[in-house]
Parts: sequence; C-alpha cells; structure tokens
Amino acid sequence: MALRAGDHSQVAMNGLKEKVLTLDTMNPCVRKVEYAVRGPIVLRALELEQELRQGVKKPFTEVIRANIGDAQAMGQKPITFLRQVLALCVHPDLLKSPDFPEDAKRKAERILQACGGHSLGAYSISSGIQLIREDVARYIEQRDGGIPADPNNIYLSTGASDAIVTVLKLLVAGEGPTRTGVLIPIPQYPLYSAALAELNAVRVDYYLDEECAWALDVAELRRALCQARDHCCPRALCIINPGNPTGQVQARECIEAVIRFAFEERLFLMADEVYQDNVYAEGSQFHSFKKVLTEMGPPYATQQELASFHSVSKGYMGECGFRGGYVEVVNLDAAVQQQMQKLLSVRLCPPVPGQVLLSMVVSPPAPSDPSFAQFQAERQAVLAELAAKAKLTEQVFNEAPGIRCNPVQGAMYSFPRVQLPPRAVQRAQELGLAPDMFFCMRLLEETGICVVPGSGFGQREGTYHFRMTILPPMEKLRPLLEKLSQFHAKFTREYS
Amino acid sequence: MALRAGDHSQVAMNGLKEKVLTLDTMNPCVRKVEYAVRGPIVLRALELEQELRQGVKKPFTEVIRANIGDAQAMGQKPITFLRQVLALCVHPDLLKSPDFPEDAKRKAERILQACGGHSLGAYSISSGIQLIREDVARYIEQRDGGIPADPNNIYLSTGASDAIVTVLKLLVAGEGPTRTGVLIPIPQYPLYSAALAELNAVRVDYYLDEECAWALDVAELRRALCQARDHCCPRALCIINPGNPTGQVQARECIEAVIRFAFEERLFLMADEVYQDNVYAEGSQFHSFKKVLTEMGPPYATQQELASFHSVSKGYMGECGFRGGYVEVVNLDAAVQQQMQKLLSVRLCPPVPGQVLLSMVVSPPAPSDPSFAQFQAERQAVLAELAAKAKLTEQVFNEAPGIRCNPVQGAMYSFPRVQLPPRAVQRAQELGLAPDMFFCMRLLEETGICVVPGSGFGQREGTYHFRMTILPPMEKLRPLLEKLSQFHAKFTREYS
Ligand SMILES: Cc1ncc(COP(=O)(O)O)c(C=O)c1O
Ligand SMILES: Cc1ncc(COP(=O)(O)O)c(C=O)c1O
Repeated sequence: MALRAGDHSQVAMNGLKEKVLTLDTMNPCVRKVEYAVRGPIVLRALELEQELRQGVKKPFTEVIRANIGDAQAMGQKPITFLRQVLALCVHPDLLKSPDFPEDAKRKAERILQACGGHSLGAYSISSGIQLIREDVARYIEQRDGGIPADPNNIYLSTGASDAIVTVLKLLVAGEGPTRTGVLIPIPQYPLYSAALAELNAVRVDYYLDEECAWALDVAELRRALCQARDHCCPRALCIINPGNPTGQVQARECIEAVIRFAFEERLFLMADEVYQDNVYAEGSQFHSFKKVLTEMGPPYATQQELASFHSVSKGYMGECGFRGGYVEVVNLDAAVQQQMQKLLSVRLCPPVPGQVLLSMVVSPPAPSDPSFAQFQAERQAVLAELAAKAKLTEQVFNEAPGIRCNPVQGAMYSFPRVQLPPRAVQRAQELGLAPDMFFCMRLLEETGICVVPGSGFGQREGTYHFRMTILPPMEKLRPLLEKLSQFHAKFTREYS
Repeated sequence: MALRAGDHSQVAMNGLKEKVLTLDTMNPCVRKVEYAVRGPIVLRALELEQELRQGVKKPFTEVIRANIGDAQAMGQKPITFLRQVLALCVHPDLLKSPDFPEDAKRKAERILQACGGHSLGAYSISSGIQLIREDVARYIEQRDGGIPADPNNIYLSTGASDAIVTVLKLLVAGEGPTRTGVLIPIPQYPLYSAALAELNAVRVDYYLDEECAWALDVAELRRALCQARDHCCPRALCIINPGNPTGQVQARECIEAVIRFAFEERLFLMADEVYQDNVYAEGSQFHSFKKVLTEMGPPYATQQELASFHSVSKGYMGECGFRGGYVEVVNLDAAVQQQMQKLLSVRLCPPVPGQVLLSMVVSPPAPSDPSFAQFQAERQAVLAELAAKAKLTEQVFNEAPGIRCNPVQGAMYSFPRVQLPPRAVQRAQELGLAPDMFFCMRLLEETGICVVPGSGFGQREGTYHFRMTILPPMEKLRPLLEKLSQFHAKFTREYS
C-alpha cells in the first residue's frame, strides 16, 4: 500500500500513532476561516524586520506597518488623562501623589468604589461594571440628542470584536437551506466573514458602490437578499459605518432606507460604529443607527431589532491593547436577552482595565475640570492630524496614474483601486496568488511598506485594491504615499 | 385561533411583527448552555444587596459572596510589585518618579520596549507579546525541572477561559454518532459543560471518587469512554488539577495512569492547571502534565497531545479582572497549530495589561532584586492564609452532623456533601428546584451566605453538595462556616 504525502487519514508506517487532532479531524469550520489582516503579508513583514535587525541588506531601512488600524503602534501618544486615571486605578497608592490632577483622582476613586473589593483585580459582573454601563448610557443619550439609553441594554465587551461575535452567535441556527444567512458589506472587515465561517453561518455579500464613494445601495441589498433566500435563511444585516476598509460615512437618508429595508425584510440590524469619532470630510457627519431608528418613530423605533457596537480601540484614543468595547441592544426580545446574559457569564467578564478606559472615553473631563484643557487639546490634535492625513492620502493616490482612491470620509483607511497589467495578473496566477496579493508582496519586499490586499476584504471580480491605514505619522505618510505610487508605476512598466 | 402564552412561532395578533430573534429562532446550542456559578443564586444575592442598601430588614447585615473564586473581591490585597510594574507601563511618566523601586522600573521598561509603539495601547501579535511568551517558556522550564518549553508553543489568552474554549473549538467536528465527545470530570468547573453545549459537542462525564478524596480513577474513565463510544466519537479528556470545585491534588502515579490511558485510547489531553500555585495539604504536590508526560519518555513524551492552561486569576495574585492566561500546546500537529494561530488572529489579541501581569507572575523579582523581600512576604502571607483557611473549612464542616467535607488539598474551594431530609427533597421538587438549589437559596435568604449548589457542577445522582470558596478573610470565615453548619442543622430539623 502506497502512502501518499498529505494523506492524514492513514496510520503512518513509521511506528508513530497518528495524531488525534489533524487537519482532517479538526473542526472543519475553523479550517474555512480566513483572516487577511494578519495573514501571510504580515508574517512576511515580521520576518523582514528580523532580517533587518540581523543586518541583512534590503532596499529599505524599516518596515512600515500600514496594515492594521493600530494608532499607538504607529506612534500616536496615549491621551494623558486616560492613562492617569488608569494608573491611579491600577495602583491606588498613587492617589496620594501630588502629580495627578484632582479630577483624575475623583474618577479613579469613583471607579474603584464600583469594583469588587475596590480593585481592578476582581472579576466584574459579566455584563460589565454597572456604573460604567450607566456612563455609557449617558454618553449614548448625549450623542443621540437626548434619546434615552438603558444601561441594562448595554454590555461591555473584550473589544468590539467580542461583542460582534456574541451577537452573531445568538443569531446562528438551522441547517441546509434554513441556515442563518448574514448580509455583510463587500469590502468588509474580515472579522465578519471569519466569525460566520467559524459559526457555520452563511455569509451573504452585498457590494458597496465604489463609483459612488462606497455608498450603500438598497437595490443591491435587495439583490443580495433575494439570491440568498434560495439557499439560506437571511436573518441579519451588518453595516460598518464609518466604513472599514472603505472609509465612507453614511448619509442619514441612506441609514433610513437601510432601516426600512431591514424592517420590511425582517432582518436583525448589526451596526458596527467603532469609528463614530473618526469623521473627517466636510459635509460628512456620523448618525447612529439607534438615533435614526428612534427618530423614524413606530414601527421602526418600537420594533426593529438592532445591536450597535463601539470600541476604545479607535476614535482619538486608539487604546487597542486594552480591549474595551460595548454593544447596545435595542428592541431585543427579553428572553433572548436573558440567554445573551447567560452566554456572557460563561466567560466571566470583559477585562476590567478596558472597562475603565471605556468609562473615560464616554465621560471625559468636563469644561470645569482641571484636566479639560489638556484633554481637549490632545484629542483635537489627534483628530485634526487624522483629518489631514485622510485628505493627503486621497490626494496623492489620485495623482498617480492607475490608482484611484475614493475620499476617506471617516475611519482610518484608504482602499484605493489599482490597475494591474494583465501580465502581472497572469504571473500571480502562475504563482497561485491573488493578483493584489502578488502586488502587495512585491511592494513589501521592495519598499518595506506593509498593506493588505483587497482580496482579504472582498472586492468586485476583476478589480484590485489594497487597504492602507492613514495612521503613519505625517512626516512619514507623504514619502510613503509617493513611494507606493512610484512602486505601482514601476510594477506596471515591468509587466507591460 | 387561540394564542397560547409562550407560543413564539405565531405572529402576534396585536399588529406587532414577530421579532427576528426569539427563543424559537435563536441558536439552539446557546439555549442549551447552563452556567451555575453566576446563575439564579447570584442574581438573588445581587437583589438582596440592593434591598439591604435600601434599608430592608433582613436576618443578616451583609451578603457574603462565597460563590466565586475571586480573591480580591473578598478583600485580598493585590501584590504590590505587580501593580507597580503595571502602573509604570500604563503611565510611563511614572518612570521618573522616585517612589518606584528600580527593578519595577526595569521590568516596565523591558515590557514597553516589546510593545508596539512602546505602549500598552497597541494590539500585540495574536499569540501574545513575544518577550512574554519567552518569559512563560522559562517559567515552565523552571517549574518542570529543566524540561524545555518552546515559546512558539505558548499562546497568551484572555484568561484561561479563552484558551480552553479555543482548544475545544479546534477539537469539535462530526455529526450524529461521529460528533466529538469530550470527557470532563464530575463535579466539573461549568465552563466545560457550557462550552461543549455551545459548540454542540458531546459532553462525556466521568465521576471523581468522593470516597477517595475526589481522586480520579482510570477504571471510571474507561467506563465513561466505553459508554460514550456508542453515541459519539470521544477525542479529548479534560483534567482539572488542582480540582475545582473539588479541591483535590492529583498524585503523580494517577497522572501517569491518565496519560497512559489517553495515549492508548487516543485522547487529546487538556490539563487545566490554573490552580498550580494553590496547593496546601501536607504531602500534596503539584505535578504538571507536561513534566510527567515528558519524564515518561517515548512514546508519551513524543506523541501524546496535550494542552495545559494557566491564569493570572488564581494562585497568590488573584488578578481576575485583568483576564491574563496562557495555553502551552505539546505535540500538536504543525498544520493544526497554524490553524489555531489563524483562529486567534481573528480576535486580534489578548488584553495587554493581562499579558503584562502574566509576565510578572512568571518572572517575579529575583533574590537580588530590591523588591524581592516584600514580594516574597506578600506572596507567602497569601498562600499561608489560604492554607489555614483550607484546613479550617474542612475541620468545621466535618464537625457538623450531616455535612462531610473532603480535605481541601488545593485550589480555592470546598465541596462538602450535605444530607438533605427527604421532606426537603420533596418540597424542592414541588417548587421545581434541584434539592441543593433549594437548600442554597434558603441559606442565602436566611443568612446572606451565597454558595453554589452542587447541581451546578454535577454530582452523583441522589447526593447533594454545595461549593463554597475558602476566600473570605479569616475573621469572617470561621463565623461563616459555623453559621452555615447551624443553618444546615436547623434546615434538617425543619424538614424532619
Ligand atoms: C469595523 C471594525 N469593527 C470592529 C473592530 C474590532 O475592534 P476591537 O475588537 O479592537 O474593539 C475593528 C478593528 O479594527 C474594526 O475595524
Ligand atoms: C478550573 C478553572 N479553569 C479556568 C478558570 C478560568 O479562569 P480565568 O478565565 O479567569 O483565567 C477558572 C476560574 O475560576 C477555573 O476555576
């Protein structure tokens, strides 16, 4: 009997028992998961950094990680007030130090009072510290012009990622043609496709309209929904606003149309609003789904089910490493909400430091507080720089022949479309690579610039993109954009 | 047509659309999840606390939460050195402060160097900060008498819970009679049954031997395995050592027998070793599965698949709120390990503050460091008090007629068996409650003592237990134990 390489189902003949857990026996849903943002490009970037450290000669002196929305990794400084309060909470001896402003101390004491044993080291209740849920509720009310928010509908989470997966988990049911389908935008943030694969739900793609600055078009939603009904049971619609990777900010009318559509078609709405503080373009404004839904009145306000997600990872604070976030649920069935509560309790609680940061983000210093001026200045500086970088990115890319970039109205990314010559496409196919993966790999090898191929987010067949964050510091961003444009020109010549 | 209450499948007649997400349409696996540690008892405890605050008269003045292994919530103080380093990392301005010892500063600087942008606010790589994985590897090597550990086999996690669920996720496959079965101890820590329900895997119970101080008996493993093979495909065996809720510490011979059994029966081993620092009984000693497995030599050392879990939530530090932990995988198939890496990357990274605490736990101050003496004293004080409380608990309970408590050799819990009079059992059944739930509820209402009924962990049919942590401060623990014993006597009289 011949043993074929890669044939995992046979007992090996060298006396070794076959492993219990192999590619063939493991969870097939996990195998189907894809995740590009930390995929092969990033692994290669890590290797290159190591080679540089070892003194290997490269055509560049540093790897620039423009692949992930991680502001502080790109040099953005933490907001002082947030870290002061957190340090006080972590090490309450510091409450005696004269080096911390009064309002930071007050905040820290208030939070410690609300912690088990007055310590961040205690588990919180599973939905998050009650006081902080109340802070979040007040924040939402203010954000939405006074529309009430109930702390009991707010669940703190381990980053928004965790909350998104929790809500998807509730929604997944059925088999074969009754399997839950979930509509997601294409291009998408790949957490969605990954989580749906893992949960064995059906991913239903709707395409954003690149020609209209990545706008969401209800006719396209309808097309996707109708086609999906053949083979699954679509029950939820995910929206990312402001968009990742696409950077668009949805107009209010568009949100209304989406809500009407979801209501008519009986879809649970999931609004990923982690970039709600990241809106740069003139004329663009963030409208929360909760607010629009409520203002539309009954039956939408009273019946449409919605989950809205937020995070401490983005905005002006960029505190990714702390993994704080929340979900607000609206019009959720009470019994389902109990089930959600139970599900959360299995994982005990979200990390408390992330909860504390969230509390700062939703209740920052007031104008009368000693820390207000500095807080406000730091916050504005970050947001102003992001706005300038958004503009610069769009501008430089659009000056390059063969690159076309929609306005970066919000979030932290550009998602330019690149023309790739047919011979490059062919070469990529020979190598078994997506053409934009081939392009991005070459870009990385020759320039040290690490961006993610559009194929990792999804794109219309035959189009090619990459996602680049706008986060590198201003002095690096312009040369970076120019280098990238020049590389594209060279690449195009090479394969013409 | 009559509408029955609770009939979710009909469109309501009051003009409301039915919700998209209802008990009937939601994920049926989530519905099956049970989680007692934060179940109805704890909800009632919360209510009682609120009533006390509102001035409602009760037969007690405070609710004592002996339901959850959360040391700091019960008043244990954080270890100073851990919090100093963390505060320095959170707010690096403090590195200039004269109030922090040199070694804490060195540690903090070393960690910040290893963080993206030198900040805890950056995402780490998905498997955790490389430097900290190396620290963990060195810790394991030392713990295991020099047996090597590879940092690349170590994955940091959001508490041990997260790592346990990740490994279970990899193992789950098949349908009907080929569904993955996982052997878990009864009584168990209910994360296991909850995760298996959620993942739609088959839970295979093996009973610990209460008559032998909750020892694990391989004959019972074999019984459970054989019966399970009728209806599922058992592929993994979970061990909790030291045990939660049962407090036993496994003897080395027992671990060897378990490893031999797992190898012969082709079971993936999951060793939950989060209580490895919590061993109190004379003659008891912690042996890691990794060490025993390695010392058994081939084929065990070279082939038996193992995942071992640890956490910052327990031990002497009890830093539950930070959600730090890790898993070390041994003999995992390389391709599966890649899949695991990919799966982890979807969730971005574990919370960085938890990673930092883990780094301190695995590389504490050395004897030559300025913080050593204080660190050591604090650590010893906590462990010595836990040991005393373990002994006291066993002793007081065993003096009470109708209560029998095995020695608390390790971990943080006693799991005494209580005799409940037949009339109490009958009364409970009339109320639709498990008899021990009835007992614990009455205990809570009359004494303010919050413990978890044995039925939440599993127990042999017809036996009744409760789990009580040994964490209340010494001065509260003795009266608590006595009050509980007296309540049991009264309860017994009442229903005789
Ligand atoms: C659209 C979107 N949603 C959710 C997340 C998850 O963020 P976190 O889990 O860090 O809160 C991200 C992170 O990049 C994102 O871009
Ligand atoms: C046996 C056991 N495993 C795992 C855990 C999870 O701990 P954490 O997720 O806080 O690390 C616990 C917590 O009580 C436990 O008792």
